[in-house]
Amino acid sequence: MNRPLGVAAIGYAFMGKAHSQAWRNVSSYFDVPAVEQRIIVGTDAAQVDAAANRYGWAESATDWREVLTRDDVDIVDICAPGWLHAEIAVAALEAGKHVLAEKPLSNTLTESEAMVAAAQAARAHGVHSMVGFNYRRVPALAYARQLISTGRLGQVRQVRVSYLQDWLAEVNAPMSWRLRKETAGSGALGDIASHAVDQVQYLLDDRVIEASGRLHTFVGQRPGPYGAEQVTVDDAAWATMTLAGGAIASVEASRVARGRKNSLRIEVYGSTGSLAFDLERLNELEFLDTADPTAEQGFRRIVVTEPEHPYIDAWWPQGHVIGWEHTFTHQISDFLAAIRDGFLPSPSFEDGLQVQRVLAAIEESAASRSVLLQI
Amino acid sequence: MNRPLGVAAIGYAFMGKAHSQAWRNVSSYFDVPAVEQRIIVGTDAAQVDAAANRYGWAESATDWREVLTRDDVDIVDICAPGWLHAEIAVAALEAGKHVLAEKPLSNTLTESEAMVAAAQAARAHGVHSMVGFNYRRVPALAYARQLISTGRLGQVRQVRVSYLQDWLAEVNAPMSWRLRKETAGSGALGDIASHAVDQVQYLLDDRVIEASGRLHTFVGQRPGPYGAEQVTVDDAAWATMTLAGGAIASVEASRVARGRKNSLRIEVYGSTGSLAFDLERLNELEFLDTADPTAEQGFRRIVVTEPEHPYIDAWWPQGHVIGWEHTFTHQISDFLAAIRDGFLPSPSFEDGLQVQRVLAAIEESAASRSVLLQI
Amino acid sequence: MNRPLGVAAIGYAFMGKAHSQAWRNVSSYFDVPAVEQRIIVGTDAAQVDAAANRYGWAESATDWREVLTRDDVDIVDICAPGWLHAEIAVAALEAGKHVLAEKPLSNTLTESEAMVAAAQAARAHGVHSMVGFNYRRVPALAYARQLISTGRLGQVRQVRVSYLQDWLAEVNAPMSWRLRKETAGSGALGDIASHAVDQVQYLLDDRVIEASGRLHTFVGQRPGPYGAEQVTVDDAAWATMTLAGGAIASVEASRVARGRKNSLRIEVYGSTGSLAFDLERLNELEFLDTADPTAEQGFRRIVVTEPEHPYIDAWWPQGHVIGWEHTFTHQISDFLAAIRDGFLPSPSFEDGLQVQRVLAAIEESAASRSVLLQI
Amino acid sequence: MNRPLGVAAIGYAFMGKAHSQAWRNVSSYFDVPAVEQRIIVGTDAAQVDAAANRYGWAESATDWREVLTRDDVDIVDICAPGWLHAEIAVAALEAGKHVLAEKPLSNTLTESEAMVAAAQAARAHGVHSMVGFNYRRVPALAYARQLISTGRLGQVRQVRVSYLQDWLAEVNAPMSWRLRKETAGSGALGDIASHAVDQVQYLLDDRVIEASGRLHTFVGQRPGPYGAEQVTVDDAAWATMTLAGGAIASVEASRVARGRKNSLRIEVYGSTGSLAFDLERLNELEFLDTADPTAEQGFRRIVVTEPEHPYIDAWWPQGHVIGWEHTFTHQISDFLAAIRDGFLPSPSFEDGLQVQRVLAAIEESAASRSVLLQI
Repeated sequence: MNRPLGVAAIGYAFMGKAHSQAWRNVSSYFDVPAVEQRIIVGTDAAQVDAAANRYGWAESATDWREVLTRDDVDIVDICAPGWLHAEIAVAALEAGKHVLAEKPLSNTLTESEAMVAAAQAARAHGVHSMVGFNYRRVPALAYARQLISTGRLGQVRQVRVSYLQDWLAEVNAPMSWRLRKETAGSGALGDIASHAVDQVQYLLDDRVIEASGRLHTFVGQRPGPYGAEQVTVDDAAWATMTLAGGAIASVEASRVARGRKNSLRIEVYGSTGSLAFDLERLNELEFLDTADPTAEQGFRRIVVTEPEHPYIDAWWPQGHVIGWEHTFTHQISDFLAAIRDGFLPSPSFEDGLQVQRVLAAIEESAASRSVLLQI
Repeated sequence: MNRPLGVAAIGYAFMGKAHSQAWRNVSSYFDVPAVEQRIIVGTDAAQVDAAANRYGWAESATDWREVLTRDDVDIVDICAPGWLHAEIAVAALEAGKHVLAEKPLSNTLTESEAMVAAAQAARAHGVHSMVGFNYRRVPALAYARQLISTGRLGQVRQVRVSYLQDWLAEVNAPMSWRLRKETAGSGALGDIASHAVDQVQYLLDDRVIEASGRLHTFVGQRPGPYGAEQVTVDDAAWATMTLAGGAIASVEASRVARGRKNSLRIEVYGSTGSLAFDLERLNELEFLDTADPTAEQGFRRIVVTEPEHPYIDAWWPQGHVIGWEHTFTHQISDFLAAIRDGFLPSPSFEDGLQVQRVLAAIEESAASRSVLLQI
Repeated sequence: MNRPLGVAAIGYAFMGKAHSQAWRNVSSYFDVPAVEQRIIVGTDAAQVDAAANRYGWAESATDWREVLTRDDVDIVDICAPGWLHAEIAVAALEAGKHVLAEKPLSNTLTESEAMVAAAQAARAHGVHSMVGFNYRRVPALAYARQLISTGRLGQVRQVRVSYLQDWLAEVNAPMSWRLRKETAGSGALGDIASHAVDQVQYLLDDRVIEASGRLHTFVGQRPGPYGAEQVTVDDAAWATMTLAGGAIASVEASRVARGRKNSLRIEVYGSTGSLAFDLERLNELEFLDTADPTAEQGFRRIVVTEPEHPYIDAWWPQGHVIGWEHTFTHQISDFLAAIRDGFLPSPSFEDGLQVQRVLAAIEESAASRSVLLQI
Repeated sequence: MNRPLGVAAIGYAFMGKAHSQAWRNVSSYFDVPAVEQRIIVGTDAAQVDAAANRYGWAESATDWREVLTRDDVDIVDICAPGWLHAEIAVAALEAGKHVLAEKPLSNTLTESEAMVAAAQAARAHGVHSMVGFNYRRVPALAYARQLISTGRLGQVRQVRVSYLQDWLAEVNAPMSWRLRKETAGSGALGDIASHAVDQVQYLLDDRVIEASGRLHTFVGQRPGPYGAEQVTVDDAAWATMTLAGGAIASVEASRVARGRKNSLRIEVYGSTGSLAFDLERLNELEFLDTADPTAEQGFRRIVVTEPEHPYIDAWWPQGHVIGWEHTFTHQISDFLAAIRDGFLPSPSFEDGLQVQRVLAAIEESAASRSVLLQI
């Protein structure tokens, strides 16, 4: 095939805008197969048409099924809400389209398992799939993984991850589909703790084998259009997880942590070194190396903008920081390279399902764990 | 009684050195009853005599029971290891001496309960007692409690505490009494998570009513004088705790977190404000106030060295930071003021027992909590 | 005119790449007149053609004079080296093209004065011009200016600016046109101290009326293709400057400050408040407000990603940071809006000339200032 | 002589309190000759008597000349204001007393020269003297000097020092002797820039040979008891200085920098490494080492609390920070060790005079330096 790969995006809201940016810019920085932003799909015809103009898509449409029948569409990028992932992804894969699905893979284990089955069937025909845990493509985190895998931390023992936001701190923040179990699956757990779980497995190149946790809803009712409604998902989640290699990771996620906007913080403690990271300063990585003489040891604040760092030689000179959006640019670069070179994109749908299983284990354990104090 | 209060310290190691400093200096900064460093007690006669000279004690002794019979001793300051606390404290209180006991109160609930009983009996005769959770006397934390109690954070929802050290990160760090359950009671849990639990209750002026957690020993064997020995306490601990007022606190403690030397970090998230603190920067407190206009909100790095801050007008001009040791100076100042003015010192032995109960609940829950993943 | 504005860029290296990014993306985020990336110009035909493909330009060319004759080019964006600015800008303005010129305005005062004259003549015919001090478009700095202009700092007294890089720290870094006075004009002074001078004037909305300073070359020789060559520009510069309103600003610039990659740090101290900024963390601004009670005062770390902050509502939700490159996107957005609405773009060529005059005063004073110590 | 060294302190205000602390505690931490706090001297009999009780002095007195005649006084510690330094120091040295004089050495070059002469004469008889630039005894700065002297930074090129305070930011802060030239000599220059100058020379083990600078008074009048009075010293100072070894240092000092309480910040840039320090976090030192692989380079935040660090093995375990006051404890420890071992204490009066000469050069240059801009 000599023509550029045609892309269709399903969804034009927050994730649609972010993914569009990546499709629009990826070729300016990375050597990837030629792509064309063919069509963007949404429910509201006028709005999706405006989005097409704004974000660089040649056409817009309202029926994603029809789009799957087009010959000039090679890749389907699913930016729709989680409850639609499974249906779209399975259909697209069956139609022979490569699929990139936003995280979390889907809202239920059953759906995710169906998606994995479809992905495996398609893979036999050279049709690829990937789940969008975009924080794997933060250069500092990709570099952290390199440091860990090359043994610079020794044996990793303890990992601490918190993902704190505050957009639900206000008790009058309105009810929405994200706060109902039937549409969102879960709250902070699925939305942001899922990133944390994936990161732990990614950084350590390991798998969670055991988990326990706790869920809580600090604000139980929210104003809806016709009065107060019940919030049926968590707004905070806690967990500890054991990895196959023996490390233990803790996770804390919250949507009510005043002053934390998008604060994914990660600390990794190994037998001979440690790392620390904060997504609000995503161009930095802290690294402590016990190979340094004791008196000289300290967490180094590495500004991850050197050509030696992952993804960076595509960008600007040292010290010229990049933004959050380029996690998606890198993700699409890697996805396109995988399609071109015929290797499997990562994280796979199987990886996405594994994360869902961990979240399910946390939920299951959350029911019955604590000890009441005698007062 | 017109003569100065006579003090006896039991123990001359790390805590003995730190407490001696406080007794030696408290009167230079605070208006407290006159005190005299009468006698310090230890097992090795030569060493305790050297400590007496060095740390400003008039005499030394090796038999603490004998010291309790002296009329010129009014206060007994217990800096001995935890397994000795109960016996010394009960005897001292029965001898009519005011008692300051280092934390944790003791190694077992039974011992702690006996200490509380003795404290209550003594209290009826005006004999006071206190447990040494010295971090209550960090100015930044005392100030944090003021901010919380005066409503500047609104309703506190989430508290995050980690206490990370690394003195056991090295697998060849030698076996010691601190690593055996029979002498130390527990590991990171009792030694440092106890500080974390006390702080949560102190800051929120609230009580833990429910807890669950996990313990782990990353390095199971350590070199002893005759070969490898089994470590029988945890070197890391995790917990979540519910407070009576509805807040949820997480705690993580570790002795193997490379690069963290004495890093007690605390974050408190309320409905209208938040706080953050790190013991390695103990003169600072971060405070976020949602009463500020949105565009101006941010965590303020308060340098807690103003005369308006707790304890500080005794010290130096603004920006001249104080050290860790003065948590003890403040503790003794408060203890002496309580004795003089006849009110109850805080934290009481009852407070110490409550912390022990929380730790016991965490241990109990740690046995059976997690969910195995289907792989 | 109903068709989109046609843009020609002169130069395809570092600045060409950065500006291309801005032209390619501006319409996806900001409501600006429609633009088309018509043509990019460079000396090497093959390279500029590759750049055109990569960066989204319809055509490429090697003769900028010819491009100025095209009717479909409305805007000329000068990304060429400084010694070419004057010639291109004057010709483009005379040809009726709007001109955006990278900073510094030019290498000499004479050239800059000619550019200002051309800009003033063109302005009479509705032809606009602007000099690219892109850091005015960092949201945190635009917001800092708002805080200052609305009086939140009281009367500004002291400003401290340092711009530190280290790409010449290595003595073996090779000779280049940037290190020769005849091609570069000056070294750190013109290249990066110019940003510092512009920022001071921009933030305070004031003008420097007096300056003194010092220049130094730490590495006097560099390897050239035929052996060592003399470096004839400074690699570090220092200055103090008086502003008309009474403030005093200090500036320090360096290309040999090991470990500082692109560290433009700014501190502004007013009678009732202060600000601090670091370009390596460009999404943050620190603000201290003495209207807070003394005990609560501290530098607030504002994460400048709220919709209330300048430029930000075009981008992502709170806490999702943007990168250095979007200073150019914002610059072009403002430039296009000025063209559309008929007001004068800022900073003007006059502003660029004023910065050059300040730099010239620093150079002049640098000859004869210091006092030798009697030893 | 077998009896303890007797100490007399002249002055009981801020510095008297800080020095008393050091005399009271030095023997508890360091192996120094035995000392006794014999007598403290001040103008107000009642106040100095209270200070004696509070700070651990055996006696008090109001006539320092009489004290110099006492045989039981071996050391005179001058904590009085600068205008008294010369008279007391010369008399004490002539009386055969070792002298520790607070910085700055005196208010005028003439006085300082007389002090040096007296010190040199006394030295011939084994009588020692020292000027109290206490920040040489910050462990992090003593360690920084070690790193520099052992070549870890390569050749030092650029040093940046700022010393910012804000106690005069308020226009209504009252007039005092510190704001009159005849009593204070100078303002920010002598009081705090003197620390900066000494540190530069200390850290680099080098001498300033050339200086230029600027002085400014932002608040020219202050309320006195009978109305507004003229401030006749600077409240901010700027300088650049050349060192004999080729490094260039910049200094900025201010008493009106809102939000900076006692912020002495130092950055040292060498050919192969760099350092950064902030007195408000005096237990930390940042170190960048270009011997690390490029991708791993970053400023290491060293917590300077390891036994391997200067002075620290006297104190607490790792991570237990010390306070500002112990710069004096270390200073006295070093002074006593020098007396005992017969080597010359450092910094000497000659070092103090050299700092005064640098300050004088800055003042001299400040008159006529800047270039007016043509507007």
